[in-house]
Amino acid sequence: MKGKTIHEIKVGDTAEFTKTITEADVVLFAGITGDFNPAHVNQVWAEGTRFKERIAHGMLSGGMLSAVLGMHLPGPGTIYLSQELRFLAPVHIGDTITARVEVQELFQENNRVRLHTTCQNQDGTVVVDGTAIVLPPTTT
Amino acid sequence: MKGKTIHEIKVGDTAEFTKTITEADVVLFAGITGDFNPAHVNQVWAEGTRFKERIAHGMLSGGMLSAVLGMHLPGPGTIYLSQELRFLAPVHIGDTITARVEVQELFQENNRVRLHTTCQNQDGTVVVDGTAIVLPPTTT
Amino acid sequence: MKGKTIHEIKVGDTAEFTKTITEADVVLFAGITGDFNPAHVNQVWAEGTRFKERIAHGMLSGGMLSAVLGMHLPGPGTIYLSQELRFLAPVHIGDTITARVEVQELFQENNRVRLHTTCQNQDGTVVVDGTAIVLPPTTT
Amino acid sequence: MKGKTIHEIKVGDTAEFTKTITEADVVLFAGITGDFNPAHVNQVWAEGTRFKERIAHGMLSGGMLSAVLGMHLPGPGTIYLSQELRFLAPVHIGDTITARVEVQELFQENNRVRLHTTCQNQDGTVVVDGTAIVLPPTTT
Repeated sequence: MKGKTIHEIKVGDTAEFTKTITEADVVLFAGITGDFNPAHVNQVWAEGTRFKERIAHGMLSGGMLSAVLGMHLPGPGTIYLSQELRFLAPVHIGDTITARVEVQELFQENNRVRLHTTCQNQDGTVVVDGTAIVLPPTTT
Repeated sequence: MKGKTIHEIKVGDTAEFTKTITEADVVLFAGITGDFNPAHVNQVWAEGTRFKERIAHGMLSGGMLSAVLGMHLPGPGTIYLSQELRFLAPVHIGDTITARVEVQELFQENNRVRLHTTCQNQDGTVVVDGTAIVLPPTTT
Repeated sequence: MKGKTIHEIKVGDTAEFTKTITEADVVLFAGITGDFNPAHVNQVWAEGTRFKERIAHGMLSGGMLSAVLGMHLPGPGTIYLSQELRFLAPVHIGDTITARVEVQELFQENNRVRLHTTCQNQDGTVVVDGTAIVLPPTTT
Repeated sequence: MKGKTIHEIKVGDTAEFTKTITEADVVLFAGITGDFNPAHVNQVWAEGTRFKERIAHGMLSGGMLSAVLGMHLPGPGTIYLSQELRFLAPVHIGDTITARVEVQELFQENNRVRLHTTCQNQDGTVVVDGTAIVLPPTTT
């Protein structure tokens, strides 16, 4: 159970993971992080916002990106150095989100990989866009 | 239930939230995000890593920052535009993490606030460092 | 992180917290407490009751009152001495419940505070009514 | 699946339910109720309190009493009218709690039953004491 080393990764490689975001996911995410922002947990309040209903926590999408990086590309053994996230559109309960990473640049000299990271909903709308820097596993 | 507008926020304002990260948090975070990276869910595998045990998902700390932004500063009604996260040290199960945000700059012309965002453990080690840009609620 | 002492509390002070009660909340509450009363977990059985559907556990509303007492008024450091709850109306899945506490009487001689505690749904119906006695934090 | 009617209940009847309170129970209870009182979720803070460690939410014990009333005595079909709870001692993570109800008085004229309700830990210490009033199911 070992991810890809930098020598096994090419610019343009991609990996992805898709799941439907449920009300239970939002309830549990609030419970773990303490984020009881009414936008996430108060339906009456949320109806008065521009989104008209409760929306999922943005970091839940971030967590799906982490899943792709740590399980698939590069995979187990990867050290997560940084993640930049831009929240472009809301995730509604019931949306099916695809987290996708694509290798943008390899830094052989210090074993770093930069990836373009996005989350899209079932309509193809990009809800989260950003960049990750990771340290892929080494052979030793 | 409304957060602070940009006129009620000053550079240097801070807010924070603290909780202990438990094994249950890590189990549930894996279940919500699909992040079953063995570093988080496989104790035997984790014992062979540099961290010697399972560690919490970095995005769980990110979620605590979101909690502070959306509940306290600026608070309810805030739109989360972007978050940059640098993962500087692992979060172990049992660590007590304080997520803290501090206002760095106000952009009155387009109603944006930039905040310095950090997560520290019980020893004062900064485990996550970064920057958030948010749109605080408006009075209208 | 310290709540209000009795000297910082006045009769008439209030605090509240609102969230929507989801199916996931009811499922998890059953799992934690062992309360698998069919009124809460058996949809077919519940359809034959006067409520026509599964209802939330009354103590879930009680827990929201505890949240307000322990986090806001008096806040951290409060010792919960007693709670009396009258269950006046059912909480349905999807209801948005506001737990509210209001200081009724201060007992300086033995550092006790009595609060009127209510939970209301989105229509203003009081679903739980009662009284709490707490020991607010002291300065020493 | 029907509980006992008032004609099937005698003063002195008892029922009970026992479970061990885990860290996961406390994490989930916080997540459901929004009760992130540091006494329950912040180990460092809790070590500075009289209890020296995180304690379980008192209402979690209350929920176990509800379980006994709604599942065993009187059982399914019972309407919960009121509950008075006195929190006498803390529940620590790892404690094994027995929730017990005992019929104290029957009110045939309006179909009400009063029960003495207690929660004890593994050492026999009563942690919660109180009284419940319920409407047992009727035959029609």
